[in-house]
Amino acid sequence: MASKKTARRRSDTLSPGARVAHLRPVGVIKSSLKDRHSSPMQGSEGAPDAWLEVDSSVQEALEGLQVGEQIIVITWLHESDRNVLKVHPRSDPGRRLTGVFATRSPDRPNPLGLHPVTIRRIVRNRLRIGPIEAIDGTPVVDIKPAL
Amino acid sequence: MASKKTARRRSDTLSPGARVAHLRPVGVIKSSLKDRHSSPMQGSEGAPDAWLEVDSSVQEALEGLQVGEQIIVITWLHESDRNVLKVHPRSDPGRRLTGVFATRSPDRPNPLGLHPVTIRRIVRNRLRIGPIEAIDGTPVVDIKPAL
Repeated sequence: MASKKTARRRSDTLSPGARVAHLRPVGVIKSSLKDRHSSPMQGSEGAPDAWLEVDSSVQEALEGLQVGEQIIVITWLHESDRNVLKVHPRSDPGRRLTGVFATRSPDRPNPLGLHPVTIRRIVRNRLRIGPIEAIDGTPVVDIKPAL
Repeated sequence: MASKKTARRRSDTLSPGARVAHLRPVGVIKSSLKDRHSSPMQGSEGAPDAWLEVDSSVQEALEGLQVGEQIIVITWLHESDRNVLKVHPRSDPGRRLTGVFATRSPDRPNPLGLHPVTIRRIVRNRLRIGPIEAIDGTPVVDIKPAL
């Protein structure tokens, strides 16, 4: 059964004149990490594996993903401060204040997180993925093949 | 002048109970590519360079980016169909219908585009970047260092 709709419509979203787009979560991270400030800054820095629970309404969008594959999980870093434009990289006050677009700071105008991870298991609408530093409850907004 | 705010607030956004986050454009692509359907599917497939014009309200978030650097530009693919869950990869009807999370289809629930590009020039709030297949007028929502 194809779910590709034949009637196309434009996104309800950002055109050059518009100001805002509405992001809808497609899933959520279930992790043993509960607190942003005690979590690793990057997945490669000792982060654990976690479950990505995909909303059943979009489960068929997972078809074709394979165990062992590298993917990029895009999250919405819901505890971030969107007003921050400069940070000390890696929260090290000894490092020069730097624009957030030159850093991976979670504090940024649109707090999207990019997480390159490996798929460990697939159980219906749940992907076991890792390593990933995102905390428990982090909304997932997209999943893509590795760049 | 530090722009890091001391008063922290939570994002106005997706927490596990919430349904939607509001993405605000931070810039726009100015490209010679005017039409999605005649553009390359990937930047590496003959796409041109383009200008990324960053909104002056967030210009200081660019500080620290350098010519020659590899970055990931995140766009909002505003002409996409958000109801599509499966596609024929590369629009080839000979290829099996596949879940959009296993493909780079621009049609997907949250049509975010990830564009790995090189910075060619920086002129105040404008970055010359490429190669990039995003069409003219595509909103930019984030900029990050390469993964």
